[in-house]
Amino acid sequence: MPLMQRLVAELFGTFWLVLGGCGAAVLAAKFPETGIGFAGVALAFGLTVVTMGYAIGHISGFHLNPAITVGLWAGGRFPAKDVVPYIVAQVVGAIIAAFILLQIASGSPDFVLGPNGLAVNGYGPQSPGGYTLGAGLTIETVLTFGFLIVVLGATDSRSPIGFAPIAIGLALTLIHLISIPVTNTSVNPARSTGPALIVGGLALQQLWAFWVAPIIGGALGGFAYRALAGDPPAAR
Amino acid sequence: MPLMQRLVAELFGTFWLVLGGCGAAVLAAKFPETGIGFAGVALAFGLTVVTMGYAIGHISGFHLNPAITVGLWAGGRFPAKDVVPYIVAQVVGAIIAAFILLQIASGSPDFVLGPNGLAVNGYGPQSPGGYTLGAGLTIETVLTFGFLIVVLGATDSRSPIGFAPIAIGLALTLIHLISIPVTNTSVNPARSTGPALIVGGLALQQLWAFWVAPIIGGALGGFAYRALAGDPPAAR
Amino acid sequence: MPLMQRLVAELFGTFWLVLGGCGAAVLAAKFPETGIGFAGVALAFGLTVVTMGYAIGHISGFHLNPAITVGLWAGGRFPAKDVVPYIVAQVVGAIIAAFILLQIASGSPDFVLGPNGLAVNGYGPQSPGGYTLGAGLTIETVLTFGFLIVVLGATDSRSPIGFAPIAIGLALTLIHLISIPVTNTSVNPARSTGPALIVGGLALQQLWAFWVAPIIGGALGGFAYRALAGDPPAAR
Amino acid sequence: MPLMQRLVAELFGTFWLVLGGCGAAVLAAKFPETGIGFAGVALAFGLTVVTMGYAIGHISGFHLNPAITVGLWAGGRFPAKDVVPYIVAQVVGAIIAAFILLQIASGSPDFVLGPNGLAVNGYGPQSPGGYTLGAGLTIETVLTFGFLIVVLGATDSRSPIGFAPIAIGLALTLIHLISIPVTNTSVNPARSTGPALIVGGLALQQLWAFWVAPIIGGALGGFAYRALAGDPPAAR
Repeated sequence: MPLMQRLVAELFGTFWLVLGGCGAAVLAAKFPETGIGFAGVALAFGLTVVTMGYAIGHISGFHLNPAITVGLWAGGRFPAKDVVPYIVAQVVGAIIAAFILLQIASGSPDFVLGPNGLAVNGYGPQSPGGYTLGAGLTIETVLTFGFLIVVLGATDSRSPIGFAPIAIGLALTLIHLISIPVTNTSVNPARSTGPALIVGGLALQQLWAFWVAPIIGGALGGFAYRALAGDPPAAR
Repeated sequence: MPLMQRLVAELFGTFWLVLGGCGAAVLAAKFPETGIGFAGVALAFGLTVVTMGYAIGHISGFHLNPAITVGLWAGGRFPAKDVVPYIVAQVVGAIIAAFILLQIASGSPDFVLGPNGLAVNGYGPQSPGGYTLGAGLTIETVLTFGFLIVVLGATDSRSPIGFAPIAIGLALTLIHLISIPVTNTSVNPARSTGPALIVGGLALQQLWAFWVAPIIGGALGGFAYRALAGDPPAAR
Repeated sequence: MPLMQRLVAELFGTFWLVLGGCGAAVLAAKFPETGIGFAGVALAFGLTVVTMGYAIGHISGFHLNPAITVGLWAGGRFPAKDVVPYIVAQVVGAIIAAFILLQIASGSPDFVLGPNGLAVNGYGPQSPGGYTLGAGLTIETVLTFGFLIVVLGATDSRSPIGFAPIAIGLALTLIHLISIPVTNTSVNPARSTGPALIVGGLALQQLWAFWVAPIIGGALGGFAYRALAGDPPAAR
Repeated sequence: MPLMQRLVAELFGTFWLVLGGCGAAVLAAKFPETGIGFAGVALAFGLTVVTMGYAIGHISGFHLNPAITVGLWAGGRFPAKDVVPYIVAQVVGAIIAAFILLQIASGSPDFVLGPNGLAVNGYGPQSPGGYTLGAGLTIETVLTFGFLIVVLGATDSRSPIGFAPIAIGLALTLIHLISIPVTNTSVNPARSTGPALIVGGLALQQLWAFWVAPIIGGALGGFAYRALAGDPPAAR
């Protein structure tokens, strides 16, 4: 596919990820009595990736996440020259999603945009459970490392064909099941950027952590998988 | 398959979707202490599509939804002459499901058919969270747009074979995880029509919105996917 | 496979279904604060079938349910001479599971075997939500009918290969998401028989309903699928 | 693959299982209002196996569990000489995970490491529901037996290709849905060892039970599957 079509696919896919995941968190997580809770939010984030994997995987490879783009480059699977365009498309998609989510949420008579609004990521006073910056950096780095092991392994030509969107999407669900209380779960700098730009304040001041930790974890995961398993055989 | 068999499959499949999704909402969502909540309802709606995808996909293509039928036509995948018969079959199936669900629900000593009964869709006073018409139209249009991207992408011959029911069904689960609080989630005019015809009143007066938004979103999604990805290669 | 090996597989598979589904209901559904609720029980029942589908599907076809055995016979997919042996194996497996579940549950200091114990099925005073016999018979018949449409469709040679355990298992999850409040969900006479034999009393007096409705629904589903779709092409 | 690469894969995979499953239990299960509960923990444990199945299945076979390694040996699928190295790698991975989880959990202002901390397994006073040792041994043995039936069946060359990680991972979810209240669910001696070594006290004194029951159940499951189904045909 030409680069422009791949970028449009990445933009829409990341839009879908942020609208779906953050949307479930903002609109449905705490609904009285029947709210979906953290488990529902975890499922929503994962399903955005499962669904986009089958929808646009054949167009752009469904990264939807700068940490995955960097990790795939580190793992020898993605050309360096496309890294920045992919990341720009992902961030633009995330910002549009956060903006549309704000419009929808504002349709509720009870909506107020607080410093923790739009499902921003954070640490310390911005962490759902009050976790420290150290805990946040540790868990984001470790989980993104593991996420990239799944991404590289599931898309390896030695793995079963067709299952990668399920494996990668459900890895994102798993990651959220563990870490929403700590950082509200990023492992994806684009997902963190969209809401933080709109909310501003502390959310924006803490945004650096959700670029640094996922990118480092993702790059290390990419290098580690390649060191362990080598490059996949080309043909199948 | 001959058209008549395809129509019977669509009728039964949409019956299953409405009986299953609305049935879970009406019978089980708010059961004291152990109720399934919005997350359970979201799972039920999605699983009706996963299961019918494998059950009748080879017969009718498992649209089960006028917005999908229109979106597939817009995407160049479905003949114009079959659009109206498919939609009629879907609406008839949904009405039968709503009627049978009413009979079953009436078997509870506590059942009363209120203006929000049978899991009707709505906005303003009929929205579960009191969301405005504007928020409702926006989210229904955007989510149906994305739904059709998934439908067209997952059934594209360049995507892995056999996974489309999982991708499309779980997209419906995702959509419900986000939007039940806003409109009780339609993205499917047939699903909205069955319960609204039985409940009447405000539910019926608001029904137009759940034809307009999903059909527009679905058609735009179909056009957009085709513009982005082109027509799938015929053979595989 | 020789009949004896297939019967052992059916016996163990139905043991797994009852131990897993009823076990989740008895041990975990109402655990204070963190209990799994009806949604968790629905998932457990479905996953017993998903897992056995891949574990023993190639041995016995993973019926695990007299209504499925009868429905497959009605649909022209299973020889009449094996129907009774399969059903006997299923019921024996279910009884053993109920007995072992009783031993495990008795290891809790709080356990008392009441008239609703071991997740028995029931109507009227035995229904979780107090639903009438009429509502119970209706929903059990309709849901088993749909269940067999999924079973016959997903195992049709025109459907994608390998996905049948997912489709059929998740259909059972869906069915539970809808109907636990009405009858505690049977759609499987063997699953109803194991617990009822141990609990006795009203549970045993009402057991007839959970043979009659699922068997009628299942047989009608088998006939209907064959009338609609014909016999699947033999080779693939 | 050379043994050393397989051992690194097993080490990381078991690290992922313990970090993910026990991490979800420790960090997210009881979060006020929106906590994931036992159902979320069950999903997390299962998804660690689904994701590692696709990530490293082609490297090491994704045992991640001494009971599976022993069961596969008993079933004639794994060479005796590799059993001990695999188990050592799994235990090391589990210990590292428990240590990192402790660091992360300590980042919460509310964290205290109690005798039930880090999601240790236990019976009697250490059982979540106060279940006896007898109930614990019974359920761990029976569930690990069934687990190995799923492992051997789903990886049998007569079963559909590619679905084994889904079947085996969701079997682990099912097992947790049933048995968290009884023993906090082990069926995996490595998973029990990591947290118990750090917590010490009663958790460490009871650790023997979570080696004995899963290993016996797993070995019996391996022997039973082979006796029932024979060895799978080599080629496919």
